[in-house]
Amino acid sequence: MGLTVHGDICSPFVKIAAMTIYEKNEDFELVFARLSLLKTEEFLAKNPFGRMPVLEDGDLVVFESRAVARYVEAKFEGQGTPLMPANLKEQALVNIWAEVESQSFCPPVWAICSQFLSKKVPDVSVIEASREKLEKVLDIYEIQLSKRKYLAGDFFSLADLFHIPLLHILQCLSEDIFRSVINSRTYVHKWHQDITNRPSWKRIISVPEASDWSFLPKV
Amino acid sequence: MGLTVHGDICSPFVKIAAMTIYEKNEDFELVFARLSLLKTEEFLAKNPFGRMPVLEDGDLVVFESRAVARYVEAKFEGQGTPLMPANLKEQALVNIWAEVESQSFCPPVWAICSQFLSKKVPDVSVIEASREKLEKVLDIYEIQLSKRKYLAGDFFSLADLFHIPLLHILQCLSEDIFRSVINSRTYVHKWHQDITNRPSWKRIISVPEASDWSFLPKV
Ligand SMILES: N[C@@H](CCC(=O)N[C@@H](CS)C(=O)NCC(=O)O)C(=O)O
Ligand SMILES: N[C@@H](CCC(=O)N[C@@H](CS)C(=O)NCC(=O)O)C(=O)O
Repeated sequence: MGLTVHGDICSPFVKIAAMTIYEKNEDFELVFARLSLLKTEEFLAKNPFGRMPVLEDGDLVVFESRAVARYVEAKFEGQGTPLMPANLKEQALVNIWAEVESQSFCPPVWAICSQFLSKKVPDVSVIEASREKLEKVLDIYEIQLSKRKYLAGDFFSLADLFHIPLLHILQCLSEDIFRSVINSRTYVHKWHQDITNRPSWKRIISVPEASDWSFLPKV
Repeated sequence: MGLTVHGDICSPFVKIAAMTIYEKNEDFELVFARLSLLKTEEFLAKNPFGRMPVLEDGDLVVFESRAVARYVEAKFEGQGTPLMPANLKEQALVNIWAEVESQSFCPPVWAICSQFLSKKVPDVSVIEASREKLEKVLDIYEIQLSKRKYLAGDFFSLADLFHIPLLHILQCLSEDIFRSVINSRTYVHKWHQDITNRPSWKRIISVPEASDWSFLPKV
């Protein structure tokens, strides 16, 4: 029995699940769930927070994209790309940068994206405040990536992967902001080109729905 | 050579590191670092984000409290309390609820605490909006904890531990809000009493500095 992912591939968090599965040379059945279907009793029974993605593997139900990725990596350990090293010290480095993504990188990026996704007129002051936070975080990335090829060391890992879908949605929603924060930084730019060049990622964005947010409710 | 933790035990994030170490029946040397010392060159060389805690173990430097906890758990696997099960499915459940803490629980609690910590006059609208978010999250916890003793199952884990210091600071800063969100929920209340009854936690809060935020700059 294979893996099932519930959600819509336009979601950056669904993409985290999908990319991890592809990196392990596995595949999944995508059960399409629109935003409006997430608060049905059936979906809430899988994830009480009513958010995508949800992964099903037999009778196991996993939600929260980063938890899904950790599960997929552990289940298919020794297959495809190793996304979490076996060595405890390297593991600690991956966990540090995975936390940085979740604590410091994701909130400002998501705050900017939300302005473009859900308001008819984006609030410039929110965008500017978030962009300032993001710039400070990326200054630290620039130094880190001048010393090693990927965030946790000279190996691609979950820590890098977690960044890709959020940078993609930022790029789609505001090419201007994306370019000014990423392309202006030599090593961040190189890193971004490298990690988005992976076949797993190209496969995801090859479908048009992966970059189509047009149906989203404009609140 | 033992573990060194840099920081101030009043920080909830330093407490996450400390409690994990105690649960593994280990100890650490606390190198006191006040907030104002976090932006020195010496500290930034350890953690470029200039935040506490930082753990040093020989030449390994780990920051981000949840990454520190994962490292300590992995290093002392098989010693003290098992905080991350070996079984992949149980591991996935711990990772789900650890993500819920970091994505859904921590932000509103921290937003409320920040109002009391850093403003002379707390902004009531921020507090109310965050409290509303927190109530929704805790409604889901209440259902989860009515079915199992701890968040991820019938075993105490990192997922539970991560909540303790943030609930403690909330309780210290606003006994009213704490009581109304926690004590009003039967299972959440029982769970909170259980997890704060652990010797590792009692040891941490037995020192007066653990609950003293009086020296913090009132911005
Ligand atoms: N922390 C969650 C976030 C998931 C999330 O916010 N997904 C969005 C779609 S991009 C969603 O389901 N939103 C619906 C909602 O929050 O009600 C994860 O990493 O899985
Ligand atoms: N996500 C970090 C948060 C750490 C944090 O914010 N620590 C506070 C003290 S409670 C700090 O060092 N603040 C200083 C600053 O942010 O400049 C972790 O979990 O370790």
